[in-house]
Amino acid sequence: MSRANIGIYGLGVMGSALALNLAEQGFDVAVTNREVSWIADFVAEAGPLAERLHPHSELSAFVSGLKTPRVILFMIPSGAPMDSMIAAVTPLLEAGDTIIDGGNANFHDTRRRAEALGQQDLHFVGMGVSGGEKGARHGPSMMVGGTAHSWTQLEPMLRAIAAKYEGVPCVAHLGPDGAGHFVKTVHNGIEYADMQMIAEAYGLMRFGLGMSAPEIGAQFEAWDKGPLRSYLVEITGALLQYEEAGVPFVDHIRDAAGQKGTGRWTVIEALQMGQSASMIEAAIGARSWSSEKVLRERLGVQYGAGRGAVSVSLDQIADALMAGRILAYAQGFRILRQAAEEYNWPLDFARIAQIWRAGCIIRAALLDDIAEAFENSASHGGQLLEAEAIAAKLQAALPRLRAVAGAALGAGHPAPALSSAVSFFDSLRIGSGTANIIQAQRDFFGRHGFERLDQEGKHHGPWWD
Amino acid sequence: MSRANIGIYGLGVMGSALALNLAEQGFDVAVTNREVSWIADFVAEAGPLAERLHPHSELSAFVSGLKTPRVILFMIPSGAPMDSMIAAVTPLLEAGDTIIDGGNANFHDTRRRAEALGQQDLHFVGMGVSGGEKGARHGPSMMVGGTAHSWTQLEPMLRAIAAKYEGVPCVAHLGPDGAGHFVKTVHNGIEYADMQMIAEAYGLMRFGLGMSAPEIGAQFEAWDKGPLRSYLVEITGALLQYEEAGVPFVDHIRDAAGQKGTGRWTVIEALQMGQSASMIEAAIGARSWSSEKVLRERLGVQYGAGRGAVSVSLDQIADALMAGRILAYAQGFRILRQAAEEYNWPLDFARIAQIWRAGCIIRAALLDDIAEAFENSASHGGQLLEAEAIAAKLQAALPRLRAVAGAALGAGHPAPALSSAVSFFDSLRIGSGTANIIQAQRDFFGRHGFERLDQEGKHHGPWWD
Repeated sequence: MSRANIGIYGLGVMGSALALNLAEQGFDVAVTNREVSWIADFVAEAGPLAERLHPHSELSAFVSGLKTPRVILFMIPSGAPMDSMIAAVTPLLEAGDTIIDGGNANFHDTRRRAEALGQQDLHFVGMGVSGGEKGARHGPSMMVGGTAHSWTQLEPMLRAIAAKYEGVPCVAHLGPDGAGHFVKTVHNGIEYADMQMIAEAYGLMRFGLGMSAPEIGAQFEAWDKGPLRSYLVEITGALLQYEEAGVPFVDHIRDAAGQKGTGRWTVIEALQMGQSASMIEAAIGARSWSSEKVLRERLGVQYGAGRGAVSVSLDQIADALMAGRILAYAQGFRILRQAAEEYNWPLDFARIAQIWRAGCIIRAALLDDIAEAFENSASHGGQLLEAEAIAAKLQAALPRLRAVAGAALGAGHPAPALSSAVSFFDSLRIGSGTANIIQAQRDFFGRHGFERLDQEGKHHGPWWD
Repeated sequence: MSRANIGIYGLGVMGSALALNLAEQGFDVAVTNREVSWIADFVAEAGPLAERLHPHSELSAFVSGLKTPRVILFMIPSGAPMDSMIAAVTPLLEAGDTIIDGGNANFHDTRRRAEALGQQDLHFVGMGVSGGEKGARHGPSMMVGGTAHSWTQLEPMLRAIAAKYEGVPCVAHLGPDGAGHFVKTVHNGIEYADMQMIAEAYGLMRFGLGMSAPEIGAQFEAWDKGPLRSYLVEITGALLQYEEAGVPFVDHIRDAAGQKGTGRWTVIEALQMGQSASMIEAAIGARSWSSEKVLRERLGVQYGAGRGAVSVSLDQIADALMAGRILAYAQGFRILRQAAEEYNWPLDFARIAQIWRAGCIIRAALLDDIAEAFENSASHGGQLLEAEAIAAKLQAALPRLRAVAGAALGAGHPAPALSSAVSFFDSLRIGSGTANIIQAQRDFFGRHGFERLDQEGKHHGPWWD
């Protein structure tokens, strides 16, 4: 039997889909799983692709069934399970072999693992995989962090299975160790913000404009044919038009959102680096608050849960979503920019925008413009707001974002993400802000000192004279 | 020579002030400092209080000059310096001695240190001290975490030096290990939010209503005589009225705000516990963005840095500040509530509000109402928004917060904290929100599943049929 090109450990939703995708592209894939009973079932259901799938129930046989230098992709829960699998598999490996973690790992863990394995001449790749099950099966977007050696091993396979955007595979080697997982984390953060803004727009249309769920769905469907085109707009258009027993299906769903770690990590990493991912924080916050449904119901009785009519047009809402989306991407790229500096990663912002254009959850027409903006300008140092074409779009849409966010605040519609978008923009576009007041307060109560506009050095206020 | 009641290591601004305060209250205080040259100067400048101050240049003499069981207060930079001082001093200590860290330490460090020292029968107290230099000298607010044994040692001294509110000392034993530092962290987070809202109000008045800095100062001074009375309002009123060469002094201060760790920690800890401290995050973000002054100036040229006139009254702004302050406290107490559960701390929310009423930076008339609300209601489980008296105040002021935040967003005045206050409130007071859309999206692209309102269990949408 010929040895396999790659081994996949973990046949859950994502691992299975990637294995089938690789097999379909002509690669031989060794497969195994912690619960060995899954393995045969998986292969049995693979149809004609089964001939490329090499099932193993023993880890040692799985490893020795791989071409060397080996490539093993783990699609298992992040955290402790990954550490125990590394411990189990490394004694079976040889110098030059590569372990890939394809889960949503915290990039700090990825850095730690890459360093530890590097000392044994083994390679550890942190790979962000976006696109959900369908993406993994038919073309995901993949963000790879690891050594050049690993990239050489992986590139042909990953380019083959990746989503294609106008023929270009949506996969890139973004930097060493944690770079790929970090970019995926920020990707997910942007996803959180975009989803939240869509939910806020839905709320305004449903409870402020009195539209029905299917009407709103049709509106999203229409928007998906214009500049707002994106996967999230598309699926929102679709899902709002499902009914059950004459009631919009979404009305049956409990309004308490779950979340995993990545959105939260984006905000925390931004804070640790002295940045703010305020729109992503708004989305995280909204999900946290949504999960307190019992409290919300009590407070709704106490304060009234009413939401007033708003006089904004659908075009205004569309532009608000566009401006909000630009600002969410701008915030995301600012975090990437800061991380590139902090961790000395050679992040290519244009390349990142390019590989997000297909396969992943945040794919959107806007990413074309973003990629182009970054391609044409030495990336503006990662400051999307400074790219002219983006600025023109934002400038045009901003008055409507202001109007929509203002209307929401006035009439009691929760709009944490849309309103924080406005605050973010205004805070950054005003050369002379009001932080002088904060500096004066800090000096007044804590003698912290401040800089002056007209003199060098550290100063104190006359209140200390 | 009689032995001292307490030793203070670290004669910086805060350490010196606390030493003098203790001496003035009749306690004998051994003092020392890393740079020994400071010690004699400090005592020389202490005037008649010098007789209570016992200077030492050697750590061993400093320690042996203390009554047993000993109490040593470290007022030094947090982090590594504290760990090295612990290592240096512990060999000189005996079972039952207490080390206090009076700095703004991360409570995780405090927990770790308390545990490590506990294994040697030593006690470690994390004590938050608020009030700046003046507070430390004449009456700070102190938040104590540690063992009952340490509290017995400390209580008489701390009650003597604490700020008094209607005769009641503003100090309390809040729980074990990190409880005191955690409460101080959240205190600082609320302080950040309150300062930011004041800066936003100032910006609206200066650039939206066209008032001069001294006029705004006079307005804050007037507000300090009413329900908004607070230390931060008071000092803002004062500092805005200083001039230099005919120009408001604040206009000379560079609008780039500094920050230390505590505000950021509050947000991070909230996120780690599945909460959101969105208003504190807004304040942190505003400071971060302010520090990017060069970028702001460029973006101001690119997008225009104009801020429009607003038609809001000063009374509306006052009410907006009141509503915002209530919501910032509500957010802070929600974090405390979560931490009490997470770390099994017996936090007494009424007691915390009581000890913040004098001595500390966030002291405010409102804390009277908050303390009362918590005293009368088994603390509403820490949910300030459920306290009736608070709800009445908030309900009355909210329409104006909406109006002011909406006007700011519309006219381009940065208002991250005030607008996030509105979003926080609306997100929590609506029993049926829009997170069902997010759950539907998550199920659509990732088969995450959701709960239904009408059926038990986990479900998927009809899009998977």
